[in-house]
Amino acid sequence: MINDSPFVKEETRLKVNAIIREVGFEPDPQARGLAFRRSFLIGMIYDNPTPQYVVSMQQGLLDGMRGTSYGLLVHPCERGSQTYLSDLRSFIERQKLFGVILTPSVSEDERLVKMLREFDCPYVRVASVVLDKPGTMVVTHDANGAAEAAHHLAGLGHTRIAHISGPPSFRSAHERRRGFREALAERGLKVDPAMDREGNYTFEGGIAIARELLALNPRPTAVFCGNDEMAAGVYKVAHELSISIPKDLSVIGFDDSTTAIQLWPPLTSVRLPVRDMGRLAIDKLFGKQEKKRPGAGDVAEIFPKLIPRESTAAPDPRA
Amino acid sequence: MINDSPFVKEETRLKVNAIIREVGFEPDPQARGLAFRRSFLIGMIYDNPTPQYVVSMQQGLLDGMRGTSYGLLVHPCERGSQTYLSDLRSFIERQKLFGVILTPSVSEDERLVKMLREFDCPYVRVASVVLDKPGTMVVTHDANGAAEAAHHLAGLGHTRIAHISGPPSFRSAHERRRGFREALAERGLKVDPAMDREGNYTFEGGIAIARELLALNPRPTAVFCGNDEMAAGVYKVAHELSISIPKDLSVIGFDDSTTAIQLWPPLTSVRLPVRDMGRLAIDKLFGKQEKKRPGAGDVAEIFPKLIPRESTAAPDPRA
Repeated sequence: MINDSPFVKEETRLKVNAIIREVGFEPDPQARGLAFRRSFLIGMIYDNPTPQYVVSMQQGLLDGMRGTSYGLLVHPCERGSQTYLSDLRSFIERQKLFGVILTPSVSEDERLVKMLREFDCPYVRVASVVLDKPGTMVVTHDANGAAEAAHHLAGLGHTRIAHISGPPSFRSAHERRRGFREALAERGLKVDPAMDREGNYTFEGGIAIARELLALNPRPTAVFCGNDEMAAGVYKVAHELSISIPKDLSVIGFDDSTTAIQLWPPLTSVRLPVRDMGRLAIDKLFGKQEKKRPGAGDVAEIFPKLIPRESTAAPDPRA
Repeated sequence: MINDSPFVKEETRLKVNAIIREVGFEPDPQARGLAFRRSFLIGMIYDNPTPQYVVSMQQGLLDGMRGTSYGLLVHPCERGSQTYLSDLRSFIERQKLFGVILTPSVSEDERLVKMLREFDCPYVRVASVVLDKPGTMVVTHDANGAAEAAHHLAGLGHTRIAHISGPPSFRSAHERRRGFREALAERGLKVDPAMDREGNYTFEGGIAIARELLALNPRPTAVFCGNDEMAAGVYKVAHELSISIPKDLSVIGFDDSTTAIQLWPPLTSVRLPVRDMGRLAIDKLFGKQEKKRPGAGDVAEIFPKLIPRESTAAPDPRA
């Protein structure tokens, strides 16, 4: 394994080969790790609040590591915390990580990336747009997925369309809004500024904003939510107010998590294949596709896709 | 072995000693020896299918590890897989784990525990009943929580009560059924055998069984589900059949996961404080409470608690 790794210096490779010849087998991962000053550990650093996303990403990373000697260390964090960067610094230093995978929004944090470069720690960033050298990126083109949501609502005949975005600290929140607005503009439509609201990707955040949006007069006939958790919050408020989905209100989410199928009616959502993204990220870290050092090669690309379900319909003509 | 390895620097040895002191072990030669042969990694081995459970458990374990130099390696597995035990064997051998935390249902697998003992790998088992030496156990008394669900339904006046259990490979499934049945019996009630069904702790499994249960004539007026995911499946079928919750059907879940509050109406559920359980498990692994080697000391106990919400009500007198 070590001899196939693109991150191992030629000098180290020779040293390993010498050891293998001498002792007749490869030293165990820990001894190798100490010798090369890196462990056979890959870190996942994340601040995404959605359990489904976290678990699917972990599964994807482990899919990519199957058959290797690598282990997956998890490190959730909060960008708002005072010890966020120092905690990460000691995590990276202490574990002598082989490399790390960063998911949104920490993947968008240039301070963190700068620190990884200082430690000469290989990384792959999962993000909605290209932020770095192509070989370090898995790009999810969130704007494209959001555009599909816009075309779907426009095609059904909606004109009073609301948007609840993710928090501004997530680049994906901006990309989803941009893709949605640009596609609506192509159709001669726009989100009314009073109906364009900033959320925080949580269920509770979705509830708070839905209470305001659904109190407007006239109220929106459709709402595009930056993720499924916030869409679940919209459902709750709609239920409380006896607003029928989709008859009185069409709702679209983003992620296509388990939440989307557990809601009633099942939620139209934009699917992000999170597990596949994880596997791709590991392939990039291992330099599998390009057989070059990390950072080389092409961007790995994911295009999210709208999954229409029963939460969207034409607006009531009397609305 | 690390302590025999020429790759270990004196500096590393000193650091290890400091950590041993920090986590409360006696820095005797035996303990040091144990630590030297092991990494500063703790493995979480699990097969629970619920993302919320997995993420909360990981957070709890990391809470317990805060301020130490330990890292958390995750290892999801499938007990049904042909390579289940050999994968675990190579995971434990390869990473020279300091210790592992086992959650249900793998925590109930004596073959796995036997293997850990062979490797002299400390472990803590999270399970619904005591299965091992007290100092290795975090016990969740699932039967008690299920009994609260039974008393709640009996108190509301239900008599046609269904149960959808977890899969028989999970001890918790048996404990939840046992606690539920025993408490009903105290009230002179029982689950009709035609309404006592085996599920698999998944949303899809809940749907399949709910289709059968809700087609019975007369149908149950209440159903106690072994977890919230299956309760979400019951909700879906009830919606499809226009069976109103709680007017026509009372539903109770178990876990009190995010699903419970995202469903409409919000689900009455039995709360398992999963994050706290994780922290307790790490405390046990570190021998914090007893200042002894792992395996010593008392059982750590958790008592689940019913959280009544809007999915339960008195049965319709005409039903």
